[in-house]
Amino acid sequence: MKRTVLFVSDRTGITAETLAHSLLSQFESVEFDKINLPFVDSLEKAEAATRRINEVAKTDGVTPLVFSTLVDDALRAALEASDGLVMDMFHTFIRPLEKELGIASSHAVGRSHGVGSDTTYQARIDAINYAMANDDGITTSNYDKADVILVGVSRTGKTPTSLYLALQFGVLSANYPLIEQDMGDDSLPEALSEHRAKLFGLSILPDRLRQIRSERRPNSDYSSLRQCEHEVRHVESIFRREGIPFINTSAMSIEEIATTVMEHQRLERRWYG
Amino acid sequence: MKRTVLFVSDRTGITAETLAHSLLSQFESVEFDKINLPFVDSLEKAEAATRRINEVAKTDGVTPLVFSTLVDDALRAALEASDGLVMDMFHTFIRPLEKELGIASSHAVGRSHGVGSDTTYQARIDAINYAMANDDGITTSNYDKADVILVGVSRTGKTPTSLYLALQFGVLSANYPLIEQDMGDDSLPEALSEHRAKLFGLSILPDRLRQIRSERRPNSDYSSLRQCEHEVRHVESIFRREGIPFINTSAMSIEEIATTVMEHQRLERRWYG
Repeated sequence: MKRTVLFVSDRTGITAETLAHSLLSQFESVEFDKINLPFVDSLEKAEAATRRINEVAKTDGVTPLVFSTLVDDALRAALEASDGLVMDMFHTFIRPLEKELGIASSHAVGRSHGVGSDTTYQARIDAINYAMANDDGITTSNYDKADVILVGVSRTGKTPTSLYLALQFGVLSANYPLIEQDMGDDSLPEALSEHRAKLFGLSILPDRLRQIRSERRPNSDYSSLRQCEHEVRHVESIFRREGIPFINTSAMSIEEIATTVMEHQRLERRWYG
Repeated sequence: MKRTVLFVSDRTGITAETLAHSLLSQFESVEFDKINLPFVDSLEKAEAATRRINEVAKTDGVTPLVFSTLVDDALRAALEASDGLVMDMFHTFIRPLEKELGIASSHAVGRSHGVGSDTTYQARIDAINYAMANDDGITTSNYDKADVILVGVSRTGKTPTSLYLALQFGVLSANYPLIEQDMGDDSLPEALSEHRAKLFGLSILPDRLRQIRSERRPNSDYSSLRQCEHEVRHVESIFRREGIPFINTSAMSIEEIATTVMEHQRLERRWYG
């Protein structure tokens, strides 16, 4: 069973796509073809989107699903005249909000997801630069500025999580790979122990680590189950002894790891997207 | 005017927060205090969330706004018994979808935003590693693998856009800073001209570039309006002559730049989030 899904937005459509992805993943037996139509910010473009929906309806022989986030009522009306099942995420919730708050919304396109104020724009860019400059233990000299320092063995998701924390939340995240020579006597490197409260550990099941490492360096010592078991056991014993909070990332997405870090370390967002 | 907003999700809550941010930005006169309650995946946690909402209602003296994405009906029912205005983004759209598709949803928590299959997980991680390894012209030897190569003067958003393309879409994005010595005779460096079809230019208004550069190096030649004007004019003339598509990023968010690149270059997502 196949069905075409269209995303129609006056901005990027990323919000609509993300929510729709979560909804559509509930219908496992259906294969969804996805089409993103971003930046639909004029009546002309809304009418072009409507024609596209109608073409799809004709070709497919079934009603296309349309997820939209259109602030402007006239554009939404144009879309709703199409042959698709139009679910507008903006309109659905703006009315109850207006009623509860007792004020009309400004109905202005592009209030969010813009560059924001110069301050928050700068906070986000700074966080990205910080994550890049303090990735993988390149340097340990900026840890006084860090909001969090992710630690763990190689390939547990430290780099993607640091970048996501920066892009999504504007948080200053460094990361440091724990490798054996650093921990000869089982004690943390001084650069880390000085900032113990900022440390957060990412661990993993040895067999999952073996899988991930094997993609990169198959049949190596580095990717052997024996080595993975050894490293994970060693690092987790340090986490426990030093009182460093840690999570098992084996079945977690980058978003889930990042959200858990935010929650556990009680970090404040510096940027809203 | 102040109002507390709570996000309650069985996963990260990022989708609910993003859509809510876009909705709430329509009410400029209201200051919203935001509380994220992620990973509410048991009745016990849903009841704790409900108690939290009720406390906020008592303290604030006005109804809290609650955006939720709860797949499980029992958890949602617990939340709806609270004193908040509960808007469940999942429930609102799952019913019309079930009706249109003629099948019941699986109602399983955590189908999306998980690690996905090993293939898509790996595609996303590979894209992140690619963006890191091919940032800022560090190397030009992997351009045959690139989906897109972003080019432009320094501080036009190339690095954040590359990382976002990787994290959000799993796309292989390199970026290369166009600096004057590279273009002595106004021709593109060979590493770039070999891959002309993959090039996408990020440009910017000289005065906006001056602002951004001044944050970093105030009162320098680098951040002077004269230098910014000179570089932008020079690079845009190359873009035009070489037929490289380019956009003005001055008032665009990272999401908007990335979406425009995807659309213009007709890039396919390798990863869905």
